[in-house]
Amino acid sequence: MQVNSFILEMQLSVPDFYSQIQPQLTRVEEKMRIQAENYHPDLKNALEIILSSGGKRIRATLTLLCGKMLGAAAEQSVTLASAIELLHTATLVHDDLIDGSLLRRGMPTLNSQWSPGATVLTGDFLFARAAKLAAETNNVDVMRIFAETLGIIVNGEIAQLFSKRYLVDRDNYFSRIYAKTASLFETACKSAAILSNASLEIQENLGSYGYNIGLAFQIVDDILDFNGEQITLGKPVGSDLRQGLLTLPVLIFLDRYPEDSNVRSLMSHGILDDLSQPSQFIHDISRSEVLDMAHQEAEKFVDMAISSLSDFIESKEKSALVELAKYITARNY
Amino acid sequence: MQVNSFILEMQLSVPDFYSQIQPQLTRVEEKMRIQAENYHPDLKNALEIILSSGGKRIRATLTLLCGKMLGAAAEQSVTLASAIELLHTATLVHDDLIDGSLLRRGMPTLNSQWSPGATVLTGDFLFARAAKLAAETNNVDVMRIFAETLGIIVNGEIAQLFSKRYLVDRDNYFSRIYAKTASLFETACKSAAILSNASLEIQENLGSYGYNIGLAFQIVDDILDFNGEQITLGKPVGSDLRQGLLTLPVLIFLDRYPEDSNVRSLMSHGILDDLSQPSQFIHDISRSEVLDMAHQEAEKFVDMAISSLSDFIESKEKSALVELAKYITARNY
Repeated sequence: MQVNSFILEMQLSVPDFYSQIQPQLTRVEEKMRIQAENYHPDLKNALEIILSSGGKRIRATLTLLCGKMLGAAAEQSVTLASAIELLHTATLVHDDLIDGSLLRRGMPTLNSQWSPGATVLTGDFLFARAAKLAAETNNVDVMRIFAETLGIIVNGEIAQLFSKRYLVDRDNYFSRIYAKTASLFETACKSAAILSNASLEIQENLGSYGYNIGLAFQIVDDILDFNGEQITLGKPVGSDLRQGLLTLPVLIFLDRYPEDSNVRSLMSHGILDDLSQPSQFIHDISRSEVLDMAHQEAEKFVDMAISSLSDFIESKEKSALVELAKYITARNY
Repeated sequence: MQVNSFILEMQLSVPDFYSQIQPQLTRVEEKMRIQAENYHPDLKNALEIILSSGGKRIRATLTLLCGKMLGAAAEQSVTLASAIELLHTATLVHDDLIDGSLLRRGMPTLNSQWSPGATVLTGDFLFARAAKLAAETNNVDVMRIFAETLGIIVNGEIAQLFSKRYLVDRDNYFSRIYAKTASLFETACKSAAILSNASLEIQENLGSYGYNIGLAFQIVDDILDFNGEQITLGKPVGSDLRQGLLTLPVLIFLDRYPEDSNVRSLMSHGILDDLSQPSQFIHDISRSEVLDMAHQEAEKFVDMAISSLSDFIESKEKSALVELAKYITARNY
């Protein structure tokens, strides 16, 4: 059974890479929770609903590990990691509203309980608090990359909104998952390097590490959308395809099975509305070798991420980053 | 007839205070328009729709005048003024969506033409670009006050959302218009002082100036909601009350006419759903002396704003700020 509480999840199956930064990660969790103190009580309730659905806090973990490896001040790292994780949380609040998602990680979303207006404003408030935390790092370059990344994420969501239900190619897919996931993974690592006054080369190497595991992370998510259990996913299997979103497994399937009836229908009309049997199509994709093939692509990105760390001297944090990269493709939720 | 285009509005009836910063204000307009360059083409279209509805750009004007008076670098002032005005624009995009407003300044709102999802994301994108512009000032204190102000504005909107249709008192009203309007006016002026490396005293004085004209500005808006022409307002007369929002003219009316049938109904039940004749109530308020009384309160805030400038030596910019303050209560749109 999927364990939804972050705390419980951590207690039951804690990958080792968390152990290096566990005390700081606990402070990140606290820092996020107090962001609505002294504001409208309903905002506090909303934040509680949102944060209690847990999550792996991978982005915060990346910032903390990179920062610790490079000797960043611990409190500044915690602040930056909180800003990154809260920015991610804010985008999820608006995403779930726009997609009409009622569950995330098996828990009710804010929009399933609150009005659209209150949900929009709560997301806005989280953006504001994330920006405030980023400003508290007292580092203008961190602020700049932070704001840029938000622009990239939102631009990607708009592109996705307008391209839904249309055939896309690999370039389009990778642009989308960069905007959606890899950009913030990249920033989580790179901004920790900036905060540590690291050289441009180190900033680039850590950025590349984050970028590559970000791509791998999203590919694995897209695979899990086909082979996960509904109760584990907290949403129906094949939900991306049902919503008109083509991901890597589908793109590989289209390439390998041009004679499949659903593929022929798709390719001839170019829009997903013509898909006559989505359930059968999802079933066929799930049972084929394309999920393994997509997984192999994700593993290549993990290898590239680990290569980006080759210039760093050995340390507990570097080992944890390597382990974290391997975990990205090993996870099954 | 209401002139909706900013440029036309400026050409036809330019208050003198604009003349001090006209070239910079033109650059602010350009800077806002290019924020969607290199992003999804629909974002560019959206920005065009939003900015073409014009506006007085009062907030940008405040930043530019304060910055010029204190000797801030011209380009940095333009960047900050663009950030402030774009932040304001972003909040309007989400406000109009939440309120279901179809017109703003007589022009169709974005949400009247786009899906709710696309409108939410466009607002988010504008927040991101506003934060990016704020970061480009290279001033951490400016970034911090900027993020704080966004938090205050959004918190105020949430409080307003949850208090709609309920009786409010003066304290509640002034808290709301501080969050809604005066906070950003305050920040527009104070951040220009921060950018100019002005003393804390100067920062406070200019902040107080912005705060007071911000309160006056919103009170005048709330009066215009009762005595403006529908075509000038770009929305129905009395729209706040119809939406369940009590403003200063109503609060004064409640106080002065406890025996009025609508007032008695309101006071006995405490919620606006019990208002049997909203149109009659709006008519009665519009024809009474309470609009003049509210206007006198606005003028007091203008006087306080002008007093906040007393320590500054005479200059063209100071004269323009005084003139701008007087314009706040003299305007009729």
